[in-house]
Amino acid sequence: MVERRTPIPVPEAVSRVMEFAGKGTKEIVSIEASYGRFLAEDVIADHDVPHFDRSPYDGFAVRAMDTTNAGLENPIEFEVIEEIGAGSVATKKVEAFQAVRIMTGAAMPTECDAVVMLELTTEYERDGKKYMSIKRPFKSGDNVSFQGEDTKKGSVLVEKGVSINPGVKALLATFGYHQVEVAKKPVVGIYATGTELLDVHEELAPGKIRNSNAYMISAQIERAGAEPKYFGKLPDDFELCFESIKNAIDEVDVLITTGGVSVGDYDYLPAIYEKLGAEVLFNKIAMRPGSVTTVAQLHGKLLFGLSGNPSACYVGFELFVRPVVRTRLFSTCPHQLKAKAVLDADFPKPNPFTRFVRSKISFSDGKLVVTPSGLDKSNVVSSLAGANAFMVLPGGTRGFGKGDEVDVLYLEDQEGSRWPWK
Amino acid sequence: MVERRTPIPVPEAVSRVMEFAGKGTKEIVSIEASYGRFLAEDVIADHDVPHFDRSPYDGFAVRAMDTTNAGLENPIEFEVIEEIGAGSVATKKVEAFQAVRIMTGAAMPTECDAVVMLELTTEYERDGKKYMSIKRPFKSGDNVSFQGEDTKKGSVLVEKGVSINPGVKALLATFGYHQVEVAKKPVVGIYATGTELLDVHEELAPGKIRNSNAYMISAQIERAGAEPKYFGKLPDDFELCFESIKNAIDEVDVLITTGGVSVGDYDYLPAIYEKLGAEVLFNKIAMRPGSVTTVAQLHGKLLFGLSGNPSACYVGFELFVRPVVRTRLFSTCPHQLKAKAVLDADFPKPNPFTRFVRSKISFSDGKLVVTPSGLDKSNVVSSLAGANAFMVLPGGTRGFGKGDEVDVLYLEDQEGSRWPWK
Repeated sequence: MVERRTPIPVPEAVSRVMEFAGKGTKEIVSIEASYGRFLAEDVIADHDVPHFDRSPYDGFAVRAMDTTNAGLENPIEFEVIEEIGAGSVATKKVEAFQAVRIMTGAAMPTECDAVVMLELTTEYERDGKKYMSIKRPFKSGDNVSFQGEDTKKGSVLVEKGVSINPGVKALLATFGYHQVEVAKKPVVGIYATGTELLDVHEELAPGKIRNSNAYMISAQIERAGAEPKYFGKLPDDFELCFESIKNAIDEVDVLITTGGVSVGDYDYLPAIYEKLGAEVLFNKIAMRPGSVTTVAQLHGKLLFGLSGNPSACYVGFELFVRPVVRTRLFSTCPHQLKAKAVLDADFPKPNPFTRFVRSKISFSDGKLVVTPSGLDKSNVVSSLAGANAFMVLPGGTRGFGKGDEVDVLYLEDQEGSRWPWK
Repeated sequence: MVERRTPIPVPEAVSRVMEFAGKGTKEIVSIEASYGRFLAEDVIADHDVPHFDRSPYDGFAVRAMDTTNAGLENPIEFEVIEEIGAGSVATKKVEAFQAVRIMTGAAMPTECDAVVMLELTTEYERDGKKYMSIKRPFKSGDNVSFQGEDTKKGSVLVEKGVSINPGVKALLATFGYHQVEVAKKPVVGIYATGTELLDVHEELAPGKIRNSNAYMISAQIERAGAEPKYFGKLPDDFELCFESIKNAIDEVDVLITTGGVSVGDYDYLPAIYEKLGAEVLFNKIAMRPGSVTTVAQLHGKLLFGLSGNPSACYVGFELFVRPVVRTRLFSTCPHQLKAKAVLDADFPKPNPFTRFVRSKISFSDGKLVVTPSGLDKSNVVSSLAGANAFMVLPGGTRGFGKGDEVDVLYLEDQEGSRWPWK
C-alpha cells in the first residue's frame, strides 16, 4: 500500500530542523592552520594602531614650527642629525632646525610633529655634516600617522562566527593571536543505502550504479565547514541497516543517510527511525526535488534521511544540513544567501510545489543572471558540475520566462543569510 | 638620491609576469581527498547514463501493447510474476498480461517497455497469486529512462583546470575515478623583510609592529589553490637577505618577499635581484596601492617583491601572483573575475593612477553593489577582514559618486576571467 504523507512547507521544515541544530564547541589552532576555519571568539585589538606616532613616508621628521617661513624663494636648511629605519627609535633630541631622516613606518622622534617627503627635499653635505632644505612650510601633524588613528586598543575588529579569510588572518597576526579559538568542525556521518550501489573502483554490472551521493555530500560537508565521516554503503537489508545506523550515531554530531526514504518496499528508513525510538520531524516537504526528505531526532541528535536521487540529495543537504553545520560554527547567518536574479532562459514547467533548480549564477552588466543547469536532458549529468546556485520558484506558479526576476540561493558565498531568508 | 622609475600600465605588468607563469604538473589523489583541487584531466563518461534502461518510479513494468484497451470502465488485469529491487535484474520472461513489480532505479525487464506508477494501480491477490489492474493505456517508452539518454559514453563532462566542487566529485564517483589526476599545488615561498617586524607571539616594542603580511599572503596562497611555505622574517641586512633569498629559490616554484621594494635606504630588493642576476620585469606600476611592486625572473622562476604595506601587498598578490598560481593549476581563466557593480558610497578621491580599492560586494535587488572598505580611517584595520573584492577605478578619473557604475574584481569566485579582462 502507498503510505499517505502530509507535505509541510519548506520554511516549516527548516524551522523544525533548526530547533535541534545544537551548539558549537571550540578548539585552539595555530594561526598557521586557521585559514578557512570559523572564529569562536571575537578578534579584539590588543593595542592601538599605529601603536606609536609613525611616518607613513620616507622622508625627514621635523618640527613644523621651524618650517613656517619656508618658500620657493626662501629655502630653509635643516641639519640631519640621525637616521631611523623602521623598527628603530630616535636616540638624539631634535633641536631647532634639525631633522631626522626617517623611513616608512618608523617611529617619530618625540620632538617632531611633521614629515617632509623625500621628493620635496634637497640633500647635501657640508663640512662632513648632512643637511637638507625645503621650500614650503608644513603644519603640525602633516604626514604623521598618529597612535590609535586607525584602531583603538580594545576595539572588536571581527566577530565570532566569521570565516577566517586572508584579511581576518592579517588581523589575527597584527593583534598577537598566535593561537586562535575556532569552532571545532562538527563531524557529519554518511551512510549510503541501496543494494544497487557499487563502490567507485568497482566495474559496472547490470542493474547497478556507482555510489556518487556519498562523495558528493562529503564535498558539501567540507564546503559547509564540517568534517565528513563516510561509513560506507549498505544493502537493502533491514537488520543490517538498523544495526549500522544505530552504531554510527554515537560517533558523529549529525548523521546523514541517502536513499531508503521513499515509499518503495525497500525504503527502510522510516521503520529504522521508529525502531530507534527517534522522533520524525517530517517525512514529506512541499518541494521538488527532495519531497521525501525525512528528518528525525534522537536524544537531540539529528538524523537526516536524504533522498537517493542525486539532485534531491544535493538540495536536501544545502537546505537542511548546511544551516545546522553553520550554526555549530557560530555563524549568525547559517542559511544560504538569498538574492534576486534575472532568469536567462525559459523555464516552462509549472511549479505545483516550491522548486529548487540547480543553476549557475553569473554577473552581467552589474546584474545577477541565473541559468538553470541541465534544462535539456542530454546535459543533466554534467550540469551537476556547473551549479553554484539554486533558483527558487514558489509553489503554485506557472512557468517562468527569460527576463523574469527570480529568487536564487548562492551556494558559494561564505556569508549566508539569517532566517527567514531576507 | 631618489631613484627614478618609469611606471608601466597594469595590463603591461600583468602580461610581463604571465610570460613566465610556467606550466602545471600533475599528481594523483584519491577521490576522497579531491575536493577543492583542480582537475589535471578531463572527466569523461566511462559508460552511458543510465547504463541500462531503468525505471524512474516505483511501479510495475509492463508491455505497453497489453495496456491499449485499458480505460476507466475497462480495467485491465496483470499477473505480477516477480519483484525487482534497485540493483537486481529480472529472472523471468514477461508474457502477455504479466507485470513485474519494479523499484525506482531498477533495470527494466527485457520484454517490458513502459512503467505504471504505483499510485495508478490497484493491487490484490487471488488464489495465492498477485495481480494488479490499471485503468488507462500506456505508450511504449512511458516512464522509462533509456540507456544513454542523460549522457553518452565517451562524453567530456568536465574539463581540465576546473576546481572540484561537490557536483564534479559526484561525476568522478559516477564514472569510476577512484584516483583523480589533479594539479600539484605550486609551492609559493614567503619571506617577510624588515627590522621592524615582530613574530605574532612577541610583545610589542617601540618602533616595532607584528608581521601580518606573511600570514595574510599565506591565506591568499591557500585561497588561490597553492601551498604556502613561510621561511620567516628577515632584518634589513643586505647579506643576510641575499643569502636567505638565494637559498630559498630552489625550494619553491615561486618566491614572494614583502617589503624592501620602495626607494628607502633599507630597500634592498632591487640590489638583491641585481646580485642574483635576475631580470627585473618592472619596478613601478601606474597603480595605487602597490606602485612599487617589483617582479623579477631568474632562470624562468618568478620572484615577486611585494610592498610591505598591507593593502599594497594584498593587491599585488591578487593581481600578479594569483594568475600565475591558477595557470599552474591548468585554469584557462586564471585572473580574478571582472564584473560591473553599482557604487554604494561616494569615493571623492581623484585617481591619477588606476586605483584598486578593497571593497565588499553584496547583492541587492538583482544588482551587484560595491562598498569600499575602510573609507573612514577609523575602520581601516578591520576593513581588511570584510573585503571580498577590489573596486577598479581607472587612472585619469576624478572621484566617483554613489550610484556610479564601476568595475570590480570578485575575489571569492572560483571561476575567474581570461585576459584581457572581459
